Amino acid sequence: VTPIISATDTRTVADVGEKWIVSELIAPICGMPPSGLGIGDDAAVIDLPLGSQLVTSTDKVPEDLLAMQFGLMDPYRHGRYLAEVNLSDISAMGATPIGLLLCLALPRDTTLHWLAEFVRGFSEAGRDRAAPVFGGDTGWGSALTLSATALGAIAHGAAIRRHGASPGDKVFVSGQVGGFGAALLYWASASARTKRLDEVDEGALKERLLEPRARVELGSELATIGTVSTMMDVTDGLGSSLRELATASSARLVIDADALPLFPQVLQVSRLLDLDPVEIALGIGLDLELLGCLRPDAEPPEELTVIGEVITGDGVGLLRDGVVSEAPAGGWQHFSGDALAQLRTILAHQG
Amino acid sequence: VTPIISATDTRTVADVGEKWIVSELIAPICGMPPSGLGIGDDAAVIDLPLGSQLVTSTDKVPEDLLAMQFGLMDPYRHGRYLAEVNLSDISAMGATPIGLLLCLALPRDTTLHWLAEFVRGFSEAGRDRAAPVFGGDTGWGSALTLSATALGAIAHGAAIRRHGASPGDKVFVSGQVGGFGAALLYWASASARTKRLDEVDEGALKERLLEPRARVELGSELATIGTVSTMMDVTDGLGSSLRELATASSARLVIDADALPLFPQVLQVSRLLDLDPVEIALGIGLDLELLGCLRPDAEPPEELTVIGEVITGDGVGLLRDGVVSEAPAGGWQHFSGDALAQLRTILAHQG
Repeated sequence: VTPIISATDTRTVADVGEKWIVSELIAPICGMPPSGLGIGDDAAVIDLPLGSQLVTSTDKVPEDLLAMQFGLMDPYRHGRYLAEVNLSDISAMGATPIGLLLCLALPRDTTLHWLAEFVRGFSEAGRDRAAPVFGGDTGWGSALTLSATALGAIAHGAAIRRHGASPGDKVFVSGQVGGFGAALLYWASASARTKRLDEVDEGALKERLLEPRARVELGSELATIGTVSTMMDVTDGLGSSLRELATASSARLVIDADALPLFPQVLQVSRLLDLDPVEIALGIGLDLELLGCLRPDAEPPEELTVIGEVITGDGVGLLRDGVVSEAPAGGWQHFSGDALAQLRTILAHQG
Repeated sequence: VTPIISATDTRTVADVGEKWIVSELIAPICGMPPSGLGIGDDAAVIDLPLGSQLVTSTDKVPEDLLAMQFGLMDPYRHGRYLAEVNLSDISAMGATPIGLLLCLALPRDTTLHWLAEFVRGFSEAGRDRAAPVFGGDTGWGSALTLSATALGAIAHGAAIRRHGASPGDKVFVSGQVGGFGAALLYWASASARTKRLDEVDEGALKERLLEPRARVELGSELATIGTVSTMMDVTDGLGSSLRELATASSARLVIDADALPLFPQVLQVSRLLDLDPVEIALGIGLDLELLGCLRPDAEPPEELTVIGEVITGDGVGLLRDGVVSEAPAGGWQHFSGDALAQLRTILAHQG
């Protein structure tokens, strides 16, 4: 029985204490009795499929996501977001998810309502991906910290690393790119808010910003086909990810700008803000798509788009109108200050 | 080659950026090339011994540990402390450590010197326990958050849970208890600081407070002997842990106060502060000792002290001078406010 804590319930975590939170809120929401495996014990005990290796990654999401500053994010989606970002990391190695650990530092004035909705989102996203919450840690913090660990399994030796591309390989990306960045730019821009998009387009951007989805099934499928030489997920902008792949493989990637599978509303936002749609796609955002390289003779699965190729050299080249130039720098530098200010700088320089 | 960042180097994490921190500071200190397994990739890939289950736990330590407020803690030991607290959780299930993940949220003004020392302590503690750092996450935070995940392995079905004790079982604890709590009380008390202990006793207390050690070897040994019915580690005071064991097994534990293996300086601090040494041992502190129950016919390994027995009923009884009374409540409620104020309250009520 999931305890529903209504939005009008003003109790905070300080009112009920840590043990209550674990036994009466987190454990029931995550579907685990306090005496069950994991929650309520010192550690979680987890079976791995025979012959497999463990794949694990830890990631946090900002407590003040830009989407929150725009007034768009709710705690339920915030919880889902944390689960998806963590599942994306192990999917980018080709692993199949096993479970999640949740690690929260909570200020004393965190309301139980916020916490219950956040945990529900995290747990439901995990359950949707066959990655139940096994355990975690909840404690007091002077600031809200939202962190998780994803656990997955992969056949021995099948993990797809970030290095390993060779000249001749094709560069691929899954799905569509630039939607997250376009959404950030749209809501960060005062002028965009006056010259609004219609409801359908705005809804599509909002979904991309608030509900990023890890490529869980695709990631584990790509580990089995044997022709993917390298892979990672796009969390800091496509341009930044391309540079990381190039560096890791000591090779040069040349990307065909016309081949980029742009999220449809990228073009509309670029017109609205007088920005270059290719720079939006390369420069910013957490698309959670898979980026990697395929062996030269491989037939790309249909969820992938070939966007360029690997040659000898270094860095990332961008082919536009028959000319190859260096791809613009971009992406996020997590320590370089307030992300909203950074976005406004991009808008000021480009718009 | 470990980069040594001197204490006079005033650069902060904001000066160098996240990627530099991972590739030039964390990876070399933890002994991993950026392109190696784990660090620099999306996730870590880890082998498990054949036929084993994964045991994993996530825990954070306060950035403002009381030992820090007393001016005693340095970043190197703070890093070791985080590793030990996490290893203790999986040791309390009987697991053998495999590795550690480090998850840090860093304010922009965190100095590189502090970070390098903290990571060195974390990494060295892990290496000492055959638990190398496999990966983790480092990012910006509005407050410092120090969190980690420990991974371990255990033979299928051998994990020792928190429930499972039966009437007739003996209650045991490893090592000595109360040292951490006595140290906290000693440094929190103004009167104790005037009536000082001698250097040797103060040194012993300081070591217990600053360098808690997980019972790593003992934990995995206890999982193999087959006579341990339940186990946990003592992180919130012995009294609180006893109550948790009793509740988890739906049984009553009766503890013999005279049998408690007190850390030697507990008696001296109790005299200095006019406190009850048994209440110090039961009431407070992160001793990282193992507490559990043995089957009635089991011979306790020599590192363990039998302190009581399991009977039908509930709660925790304390036998003193031939009379059994309810053990005093105690331990830490992580959300119930400032720990130092809580300590001072204990001192005010008892002293």
